[in-house]
Amino acid sequence: MPVATLTFGDRIAAEVERKRSQLVVGLDPRPDLLPIELRGDVARFCCGIIDAVAPHAVAVKPQLAFFEALCVPGMAAFAETCAYARRAGLLVIADGKRGDIGSTARAYAAAYLEGDEPLADALTVNPWLGRESIEPYLAAARRHGAGFFCIVKTSNAGGDVQDVILSDGRPMWQHVAELVADWGADLVGEHGLSSVGAVIGATHPREVAEARRLMPRTVLLLPGVGAQGATPADLARAFTSGPASALVNASRSIIYASRESGGDFRAAAGAEAARLRKEIWAVSGW
Amino acid sequence: MPVATLTFGDRIAAEVERKRSQLVVGLDPRPDLLPIELRGDVARFCCGIIDAVAPHAVAVKPQLAFFEALCVPGMAAFAETCAYARRAGLLVIADGKRGDIGSTARAYAAAYLEGDEPLADALTVNPWLGRESIEPYLAAARRHGAGFFCIVKTSNAGGDVQDVILSDGRPMWQHVAELVADWGADLVGEHGLSSVGAVIGATHPREVAEARRLMPRTVLLLPGVGAQGATPADLARAFTSGPASALVNASRSIIYASRESGGDFRAAAGAEAARLRKEIWAVSGW
Repeated sequence: MPVATLTFGDRIAAEVERKRSQLVVGLDPRPDLLPIELRGDVARFCCGIIDAVAPHAVAVKPQLAFFEALCVPGMAAFAETCAYARRAGLLVIADGKRGDIGSTARAYAAAYLEGDEPLADALTVNPWLGRESIEPYLAAARRHGAGFFCIVKTSNAGGDVQDVILSDGRPMWQHVAELVADWGADLVGEHGLSSVGAVIGATHPREVAEARRLMPRTVLLLPGVGAQGATPADLARAFTSGPASALVNASRSIIYASRESGGDFRAAAGAEAARLRKEIWAVSGW
Repeated sequence: MPVATLTFGDRIAAEVERKRSQLVVGLDPRPDLLPIELRGDVARFCCGIIDAVAPHAVAVKPQLAFFEALCVPGMAAFAETCAYARRAGLLVIADGKRGDIGSTARAYAAAYLEGDEPLADALTVNPWLGRESIEPYLAAARRHGAGFFCIVKTSNAGGDVQDVILSDGRPMWQHVAELVADWGADLVGEHGLSSVGAVIGATHPREVAEARRLMPRTVLLLPGVGAQGATPADLARAFTSGPASALVNASRSIIYASRESGGDFRAAAGAEAARLRKEIWAVSGW
């Protein structure tokens, strides 16, 4: 099977270096939080945010749930948002946390990562169904230069499942972290980063450091900064595998910044993105 | 918080008794397998199947991945299929295996289970993010009489995650099974069944029996019969908590039956659904 000339890991590395940014902006269009004049037009809101944050972020992460909640027009807005972001020079990480048996996961890979103009560059993926369920995303990474991020340790209080102690004394999520490192071992690009990434909640700084150790070639996607309470200062250890070895996601604190600061929602989002991008870059030590 | 007068468990129990059937028909519209004349019209295919199987099945289980793979028109076909099935007197189990942090999971619950005319009666849900991620579905069950099925042990070879051995010697999936029983304990209806169900692959008969023991009030949704190789005879133990305590899903072997038998796709699907429904009812011992 031919390997795509440019792997997702290399694409991220190039964008991080070009923009000197490790910021990902989460697009969570919650109808009750949108500016009143845009409550019926989620795509326009998202495209406005994209215009504002494109100079400061390497990627956007549209959260599929909020588009699905709007049914058919929501999916049209999702497709429009993804296309607009890619034209604006942003990578698109579709946050769907999909996971199903292999024959079904093939349809998810096709839906989001394949075709002449794929909706997204990467997809978040739930590892609960194991390696067999991951194969189609691995194939999309090999053939199409796509990426995916496995949900390893989440920013919420999900410890009743992820922190269960195994017979060897480790918490469950660390076992999954090792699987993720193994799944991505054949997909490491020239910059030393794999196309198989991992989501680790920034709300757990100690676990972020441990995840870095367990997955040295893995791009860590770190949500939970801002509205969920984590700060970039907690995350320095995540960047020890290179400037692009971790991406920091903030959603509500950027896209709804005007609710705090007042003023135009785009200007407020752009200012907050610029501020956070600088803070993260400084913390990363590169 | 008011409890919906009719819980999902009671609704399933009533339908199983009324139809004397525990059959669920999975709607997996794979473009390459559809009758040639319907390859551009997934909704018409699904509605044709619904007409054919409605007398024999208690529910359909549309697999979201195959609709999402068709992007915006796919979601329109999904909505049309769900509405058509409900009008035909079938329960709808949206197979999305969704899972996200609570504030996002609320959007999934709203998307599929809430509103004046919800798309579906139940949703499949991934438990990897823990109880916090389940709360919105519990709320939808309480307020709207909705149900959901947690993915506990899948029909694929997912053992590298689900079968990992815990410090107490049990496999991981059994821990999740106990969580599911606990999550659903407050939502047991008059028929003794909870609105919180569990998906257990029919391809693992020993695990089905163990799941029944660990989750005595839980409706087990058992996929994997037919194309994936399991047979109803393997599943008798699942029904010991009542005639509606297990539902058996078959997808490809029913909806693509005409590829084996020839003839009209609806007639072939109806005949296979009728046959399988009888076989399951006999095995269930009710």
